Amino acid sequence: NPLTHFDADGQAHMVDVGAKAETRRVAIATGRILMQPETFAMIRAGTAKKGDVLGIARIAAIQASKRSSELIPLCHPIPLTRVTVDFELDEAESALRCTVNAETVGRTGVEMEALTAVSLGLLTIYDMCKAVDRGMRIEGIQLLEKLGGKSGHWKA
Amino acid sequence: NPLTHFDADGQAHMVDVGAKAETRRVAIATGRILMQPETFAMIRAGTAKKGDVLGIARIAAIQASKRSSELIPLCHPIPLTRVTVDFELDEAESALRCTVNAETVGRTGVEMEALTAVSLGLLTIYDMCKAVDRGMRIEGIQLLEKLGGKSGHWKA
Amino acid sequence: NPLTHFDADGQAHMVDVGAKAETRRVAIATGRILMQPETFAMIRAGTAKKGDVLGIARIAAIQASKRSSELIPLCHPIPLTRVTVDFELDEAESALRCTVNAETVGRTGVEMEALTAVSLGLLTIYDMCKAVDRGMRIEGIQLLEKLGGKSGHWKA
Amino acid sequence: NPLTHFDADGQAHMVDVGAKAETRRVAIATGRILMQPETFAMIRAGTAKKGDVLGIARIAAIQASKRSSELIPLCHPIPLTRVTVDFELDEAESALRCTVNAETVGRTGVEMEALTAVSLGLLTIYDMCKAVDRGMRIEGIQLLEKLGGKSGHWKA
Amino acid sequence: NPLTHFDADGQAHMVDVGAKAETRRVAIATGRILMQPETFAMIRAGTAKKGDVLGIARIAAIQASKRSSELIPLCHPIPLTRVTVDFELDEAESALRCTVNAETVGRTGVEMEALTAVSLGLLTIYDMCKAVDRGMRIEGIQLLEKLGGKSGHWKA
Amino acid sequence: NPLTHFDADGQAHMVDVGAKAETRRVAIATGRILMQPETFAMIRAGTAKKGDVLGIARIAAIQASKRSSELIPLCHPIPLTRVTVDFELDEAESALRCTVNAETVGRTGVEMEALTAVSLGLLTIYDMCKAVDRGMRIEGIQLLEKLGGKSGHWKA
Repeated sequence: NPLTHFDADGQAHMVDVGAKAETRRVAIATGRILMQPETFAMIRAGTAKKGDVLGIARIAAIQASKRSSELIPLCHPIPLTRVTVDFELDEAESALRCTVNAETVGRTGVEMEALTAVSLGLLTIYDMCKAVDRGMRIEGIQLLEKLGGKSGHWKA
Repeated sequence: NPLTHFDADGQAHMVDVGAKAETRRVAIATGRILMQPETFAMIRAGTAKKGDVLGIARIAAIQASKRSSELIPLCHPIPLTRVTVDFELDEAESALRCTVNAETVGRTGVEMEALTAVSLGLLTIYDMCKAVDRGMRIEGIQLLEKLGGKSGHWKA
Repeated sequence: NPLTHFDADGQAHMVDVGAKAETRRVAIATGRILMQPETFAMIRAGTAKKGDVLGIARIAAIQASKRSSELIPLCHPIPLTRVTVDFELDEAESALRCTVNAETVGRTGVEMEALTAVSLGLLTIYDMCKAVDRGMRIEGIQLLEKLGGKSGHWKA
Repeated sequence: NPLTHFDADGQAHMVDVGAKAETRRVAIATGRILMQPETFAMIRAGTAKKGDVLGIARIAAIQASKRSSELIPLCHPIPLTRVTVDFELDEAESALRCTVNAETVGRTGVEMEALTAVSLGLLTIYDMCKAVDRGMRIEGIQLLEKLGGKSGHWKA
Repeated sequence: NPLTHFDADGQAHMVDVGAKAETRRVAIATGRILMQPETFAMIRAGTAKKGDVLGIARIAAIQASKRSSELIPLCHPIPLTRVTVDFELDEAESALRCTVNAETVGRTGVEMEALTAVSLGLLTIYDMCKAVDRGMRIEGIQLLEKLGGKSGHWKA
Repeated sequence: NPLTHFDADGQAHMVDVGAKAETRRVAIATGRILMQPETFAMIRAGTAKKGDVLGIARIAAIQASKRSSELIPLCHPIPLTRVTVDFELDEAESALRCTVNAETVGRTGVEMEALTAVSLGLLTIYDMCKAVDRGMRIEGIQLLEKLGGKSGHWKA
């Protein structure tokens, strides 16, 4: 079965990574949330002074990365060794970009940890701004880069 | 502060919903994951016979909806009374759409529960297919509709 | 579909309980763990003096009952109003019986909460005694009684 | 047994609150962390500009309040309707005071939710500053006030 | 104390495994759920076509295995490297057997992870079928085999 | 930034420990709860016979230590290899002291695990005795000692 999460009979399993080497593994993922220009202005104002939406979203992203294996059924539990979360403000599009770098020294990759962190970071922005802008939209959640393991370097 | 999750001093808090009425509240959210045509074909084949990607993603979505208040810092804990998860196959775009309907009888809305379910449902699809298609992309996570509470009916 | 956790298309969902009345609901479940007479003697000695296996298993059972909706995919989150855990020693069979009474005032029953508590209570006994008796066996986990809700009183 | 968490035989249980009325309940708790004057100065600087220790500790406190019933074995699960977290800077003592106000409309009080939030808020400050000041000390975690329920108003 | 989870004074502790070698460890556990022939027929029909009870129970079992150390008080946290869940249909007895194989490369065994997975897999079957058969009974949860670590190979 | 949990721009991150060696690390933390002499007498009586407050608080402390990385936003997930919890009775002050020893073989220290365990152990005592003594106060939560890692031995 080319979908490795299923065995020859099509039954789901948590795949065997016991024989893989413990190596440094990195995953970088990104995504964006689009909003009204007024909402964007409020968030930007907040990061400078008060009502720090991005500071809270960053914490939510880091905490979510640590719980990926609880949330994603066939994901292996992995002790992350590093997580960083960056936000970029794109005024032209009234959008915020969230980019997460996750790392471990382990037997399997941390793509899901990086992607889960991006998703929850953006959802937390939605939560904090939904009272003024229910129509915000999350776009372009994807893996940017992956290092380590047998499959080596991958870039989007 | 128009961002209700912050008080007059800009400090985050979990807003007071104690005086709100317990009413039926519904939220419907949606999102898509785009992939290679080959990946799409594998998933479609699986739902009919073996290697049921969508069945597992549905369970992940439902379970995530129940944990929204753990994942989203200022989200109230809410006992959901109903969660449904539907997947639509869009062959023309090699995309899967996930739509979640969440309901409660409570003091605050369930938008975050619906959006969190959509996000984790789509991330679970990514996890199960990433071995064959690392470039999958999640797009268009947004609220479609919201019923109940003082703000009444909202539609995207 | 007679299996209410699936819709007409056979897709899993968390069933709608929003229209059900909030009533007092009780579930009583039980189960046993069988062991070597020497293991049984050690546990009995402990409850009287030191190394309180049953005291710890009781706490594990109560805590597990509160997390049933996280563990069982289609189980509704329910705020329990009471949980009691009783152990009975059956010397003739070198067995311990665990019986749990769970209660709520809510829109759906608490059978799963009672059964999950019994299961984790017994597994905790296994954990604490496995160094001396790996062959212990858990038997007869079942619902004994159920009160409240539209289906009324049920007894095994 | 005057300790209500134990029955007549001294066995722990989650006490029955099913017959209690659903009323508004409030608990206010407080505690302090003492540190070196240099650490105190760093934190104060951060809240104004960068490295927002208190903003992160506030989020940790709010999130912990929602998980009290998972952490404290005999604590009932309670859907909180409001949580606020305030920090006061005491320059004379190089100390930070954390005060939490937790509220619900429910069948039992929220003292543990308020106290757990205070504790985790202060522990998070310790975590973020331990690299420069391992000797920080948490003092005076206590309930200040409690409203609602049969026992009525209580003040420290 | 022959019960290693208690120290010389009879106090519970999480035993020291820090000096143990990191080796491959395997545990295989099993258990059954007995039901009415009609319920059995429904589940069997579902696995082939719609209403996939066993597919959902398999996911619940895998997810539970990852949370054993949260559920069982003195269980060490262990990053599992593999989990498989098999179901066997026993028509003669109207019973389903669930067998779990759990593996890690670590300092202590994974018996509890395998047993917890079996238990939650069977409880999930109960949950999904209880509307038609409240009298289902879980029997024979036990360890079948254990490999790795100082105690070596053990077989039931 | 001397506060290592923040980068050069003052943004929080989970610091990179991937290059650190896996060594044995120990942390010992302590704290006290002060109460009315009558409450103290009840707890002391319970530990000898029935209503075992300290036995339950010990379990809560051990379980909390395993969840530190979920509760403390920037704390790394660490698989603990040992946790012990001791209680000392101080009759002169009507106080209970809780001391926790936490150990791992890992890339970063376990101070937060030890301190979280102490805090939740003491909060659990508060919970179980609050019906008779709402004014109990938690004091002096601090690190006593730390071994392992580049910073070496530290003693309060």
